[in-house]
Amino acid sequence: MALAIMCSGGDAPGMNAAVKKFVDYTFDRGETPYLIYDGLEGLIDGSIKKAEHRDVAGILHRGGSIIRSSRSPRFFEYEYRKQAFENLKKHEIEGLVVLGGDGSFRAMDTFSHEFAVNFVGIPTTIDNDIYGTEYCLGVDTALNTIRDALDKIYDTASTFNRAFVVEVMGRECGYLAVVSAISSGAEICIIPEVDFNLHVTEQKLKQEIANGRRYILAIVAEGTKMTDKVAGWLQMELEFDTRVTVLGHIQRGGAPTTFDRMMGFDFAVQAVDHLLKSKDLNKVVVYNKGEFGLLDIDVVTSKKYQIDPNLLSMLNVLD
Amino acid sequence: MALAIMCSGGDAPGMNAAVKKFVDYTFDRGETPYLIYDGLEGLIDGSIKKAEHRDVAGILHRGGSIIRSSRSPRFFEYEYRKQAFENLKKHEIEGLVVLGGDGSFRAMDTFSHEFAVNFVGIPTTIDNDIYGTEYCLGVDTALNTIRDALDKIYDTASTFNRAFVVEVMGRECGYLAVVSAISSGAEICIIPEVDFNLHVTEQKLKQEIANGRRYILAIVAEGTKMTDKVAGWLQMELEFDTRVTVLGHIQRGGAPTTFDRMMGFDFAVQAVDHLLKSKDLNKVVVYNKGEFGLLDIDVVTSKKYQIDPNLLSMLNVLD
Amino acid sequence: MALAIMCSGGDAPGMNAAVKKFVDYTFDRGETPYLIYDGLEGLIDGSIKKAEHRDVAGILHRGGSIIRSSRSPRFFEYEYRKQAFENLKKHEIEGLVVLGGDGSFRAMDTFSHEFAVNFVGIPTTIDNDIYGTEYCLGVDTALNTIRDALDKIYDTASTFNRAFVVEVMGRECGYLAVVSAISSGAEICIIPEVDFNLHVTEQKLKQEIANGRRYILAIVAEGTKMTDKVAGWLQMELEFDTRVTVLGHIQRGGAPTTFDRMMGFDFAVQAVDHLLKSKDLNKVVVYNKGEFGLLDIDVVTSKKYQIDPNLLSMLNVLD
Amino acid sequence: MALAIMCSGGDAPGMNAAVKKFVDYTFDRGETPYLIYDGLEGLIDGSIKKAEHRDVAGILHRGGSIIRSSRSPRFFEYEYRKQAFENLKKHEIEGLVVLGGDGSFRAMDTFSHEFAVNFVGIPTTIDNDIYGTEYCLGVDTALNTIRDALDKIYDTASTFNRAFVVEVMGRECGYLAVVSAISSGAEICIIPEVDFNLHVTEQKLKQEIANGRRYILAIVAEGTKMTDKVAGWLQMELEFDTRVTVLGHIQRGGAPTTFDRMMGFDFAVQAVDHLLKSKDLNKVVVYNKGEFGLLDIDVVTSKKYQIDPNLLSMLNVLD
Repeated sequence: MALAIMCSGGDAPGMNAAVKKFVDYTFDRGETPYLIYDGLEGLIDGSIKKAEHRDVAGILHRGGSIIRSSRSPRFFEYEYRKQAFENLKKHEIEGLVVLGGDGSFRAMDTFSHEFAVNFVGIPTTIDNDIYGTEYCLGVDTALNTIRDALDKIYDTASTFNRAFVVEVMGRECGYLAVVSAISSGAEICIIPEVDFNLHVTEQKLKQEIANGRRYILAIVAEGTKMTDKVAGWLQMELEFDTRVTVLGHIQRGGAPTTFDRMMGFDFAVQAVDHLLKSKDLNKVVVYNKGEFGLLDIDVVTSKKYQIDPNLLSMLNVLD
Repeated sequence: MALAIMCSGGDAPGMNAAVKKFVDYTFDRGETPYLIYDGLEGLIDGSIKKAEHRDVAGILHRGGSIIRSSRSPRFFEYEYRKQAFENLKKHEIEGLVVLGGDGSFRAMDTFSHEFAVNFVGIPTTIDNDIYGTEYCLGVDTALNTIRDALDKIYDTASTFNRAFVVEVMGRECGYLAVVSAISSGAEICIIPEVDFNLHVTEQKLKQEIANGRRYILAIVAEGTKMTDKVAGWLQMELEFDTRVTVLGHIQRGGAPTTFDRMMGFDFAVQAVDHLLKSKDLNKVVVYNKGEFGLLDIDVVTSKKYQIDPNLLSMLNVLD
Repeated sequence: MALAIMCSGGDAPGMNAAVKKFVDYTFDRGETPYLIYDGLEGLIDGSIKKAEHRDVAGILHRGGSIIRSSRSPRFFEYEYRKQAFENLKKHEIEGLVVLGGDGSFRAMDTFSHEFAVNFVGIPTTIDNDIYGTEYCLGVDTALNTIRDALDKIYDTASTFNRAFVVEVMGRECGYLAVVSAISSGAEICIIPEVDFNLHVTEQKLKQEIANGRRYILAIVAEGTKMTDKVAGWLQMELEFDTRVTVLGHIQRGGAPTTFDRMMGFDFAVQAVDHLLKSKDLNKVVVYNKGEFGLLDIDVVTSKKYQIDPNLLSMLNVLD
Repeated sequence: MALAIMCSGGDAPGMNAAVKKFVDYTFDRGETPYLIYDGLEGLIDGSIKKAEHRDVAGILHRGGSIIRSSRSPRFFEYEYRKQAFENLKKHEIEGLVVLGGDGSFRAMDTFSHEFAVNFVGIPTTIDNDIYGTEYCLGVDTALNTIRDALDKIYDTASTFNRAFVVEVMGRECGYLAVVSAISSGAEICIIPEVDFNLHVTEQKLKQEIANGRRYILAIVAEGTKMTDKVAGWLQMELEFDTRVTVLGHIQRGGAPTTFDRMMGFDFAVQAVDHLLKSKDLNKVVVYNKGEFGLLDIDVVTSKKYQIDPNLLSMLNVLD
């Protein structure tokens, strides 16, 4: 049976590990692996290649994705989806593994209802905001990249009396911000899921400053658009010399951590196993309580990820 | 209630996160935290200090342990254990959290049977070789330190035709070696748990070399004492220019990863919660399938850790 | 003779190496080293301590400065400068080593003209913008921190079709931006010293995009305040999905590189040697063509640093 | 004019920067660049390719060398050197840039005396042991890789009472060992150039241990073959629990530092400029006192590198 893999949407560390394992393991199972380059755009344009071992040699330690990714407005049009299907048919590809997030899964859901394509999603986004799975590929690397930046800021913070505002990724989900704030001991954490009361915090911080606090670290999730506001407030109300760092796409790069490599392998094996054995269509591989499972694509895309309340409570302890 | 924390045996990244959380959380619970410096040696000598928040400020990103550790031959003698108990009694310490491995837990087991001390162990060793828990504090950081070294070696390996033998820690347990070999794509992995058949591997590698292989990476667990033998074999039998790296204590150092900080926090909270609520004596906090639990110290110290057979099978795929 | 060391203004990696060497080498020379904590603020408030070897043990690998730093508006007033001098006199401190930048040297110049204090400056600022010296302590570490961030961005850039704008430090000096742009192969570099012609660049880039360019990296020096403008232009005129990273104070942190440690040592030795042997007052240690020298503080503070035109020409080759 | 570049002997970080600049700059000068793959072996076998910009895109941050390297016993035979020359003639290559060390330069010296080939060497070896140049490409990256390892060991060292022996590269030259020992504050440094007197050191260390020293770090240059002896001595005579790390080829890998990238660029520009303008044959580009120059290949290969006595004296201060 011919199986193909592609990346879709924002890239994340660990994609290369999943791609490599997909190729090696599909061969091990006696089947034929294909690579689709440039995501949905490449699927439409026919950038599809029968994979060889050498295509995926020496890629485990590389960030990004060797088969690249894309966002594809064209894929919203039936005509292009049809063209994409024709490309798959030409190579007799019966199963498709897609590394991506919510949006990509929704696109594939539509696609797989229209055409005879079996699809398995691997949740891949550093935002960690996909319903039904505790872990999305790439999150561990992103957290450690943020940590490294915060450790560097701590060096300079402890030298001086200063406030730092660090903006991390997270459009609708504060996961990266919350874990980073907890693990770096930040004083302030602002995320989309929680209303932040500057007045309450102000009281508390003024008390601490009176007791000798000389350093404030605030982590802000990008999606809140609060970075400049918080910086201004620290400067004006608390009278701290305040500096802003916006980490941006650094968070998507870097050599994947050991955990993201192992998870990339495991996700790929789960996906291939499912495509080869099951008639059950259109699933997403999920990881919960240390074990892998499968969820219907409909369930994953129709519900909204909720951040673990235990995490939020660890945060409350801090601020 | 007064509670104390100490480190015992080899140090591991994440110890400082656990120590900090122990202090902060014990205060949150309205109790009194103590720090015991220099492990069992310090317990005997009375290096015990009532903790303040400031003792544990700014330590999250540091490797090692700010309260240090030790190995204590004296603790094998009853007389010194009695002296240790007197020190605890002097401060009215009723519960003791110990970060350490097998040997430390065994020592505490003896101690807690002789004297009225309640004890909770936090499995802390980069070897990941403690029965009853999938994870020991420090392992994730060690794996990433090894990975970073292997990625560097890969750079030079791909330039040249060469074989590399890298010795990693693991006295009786090949966990670090196996995960490192899988996640770096090593061709050879030698661990205490598995007999390694050089002849079978030789056939396979000679075939691959004939097909163009220009690079061999072998990971060897320290406990096998096979490093020099494997290097000699690669040089003589396979005629590869062979270089040896012995990572040694680099693997115990470095800023702890985000995961080890979060685990350090969680382990500490579990330990304090148990000491405060339960009459059930002498437990070890364990982590399995994504959840924390408690095991009797007897169970943990009387059984031998077995490496996950699924991990070993991932390895077989590779070599 | 009693000598003291202090840090002033923004901190920079390598300060701890200089502080350690100052202490150790002053002892070696048979004299008495003092530490002034919290910069000019501490000098005014008398935060002065006779140094011991143990004060500076284990600090070589730490970022920031263990004796901290400050900016001191009070020092602009004669009354506080007088108080500062009284503090030095109390400890019989005859020579003062100051790690800092232009502003700090100017403050010390005034101070040393008013009171009987001999002063030696060590140029310390990651901006590398002090007249008369090719190198300021901390620059090498900052460059490598930026490089590490750009390498991570490159990973994600090569996966996707995108433009990245990265803001680096440099108020009036584009040194960090220029060297970072050259060594990362950036397509655009915007610095205070050079007028940037978006139209010329636009022509050139549009040509390259037509030829297949899928990735644009722009480095912008903070002092130009052009970050948002360039990002908007890339998005609107060149129609690239554009992302912004503002590195901020990450650039001041991190373990100092080997070069910054060695330079910290050498700068400190030069400073102490000069204070002990010479009656020539108020100098700055400079480093040019691989050799150390001394310049009058007046010369250093009255002239403006000019970026090396050879560096700028390497940049022209690129864009 | 057609020019070619090749790497020879051990690889070093920064090679890719030099290769990229060679290609880009040769084009800028209106000439034709060639790449020779696999070093002298490739030169013999005709692995020569006319370079395009795309061959060297995206390689600045990679360790190793994309055109690889080799050691070539065949090149000692006239017959193969003649074959190598025929390959150059076929492509009308008139000038050759070689990144390598002493041995490679000697081979090229012979070659260029026999055949009409103009040759420029770029000193490239992490050992920093080439006569006539203060700096060899790759040294700065290697020093920082060692530093990173020593910083990690320091973490664990400060937790425990222990001695560490770290073996670094350096066959006949102690440069890496000496600079690493100075910049990490090591207590012992053993290099080929200096006889080490264990008895003197023993006295001194025993004194310090009596005064409370709990940690000993020894750096040993590989070429001395003293690693095990020193470890045994620390264990037996000083009774420290002693651990050995052999860094090995980690030191050759890793993303090149900013300095090695800039030096790679500069070395390449110097080499190309010389080949294009001068009739003066067979030179090595050297770097001294912050400036580039050229030395006759005979001078470079006939004399022996001497380590800077100032460096050695900094070491004496420490131990």
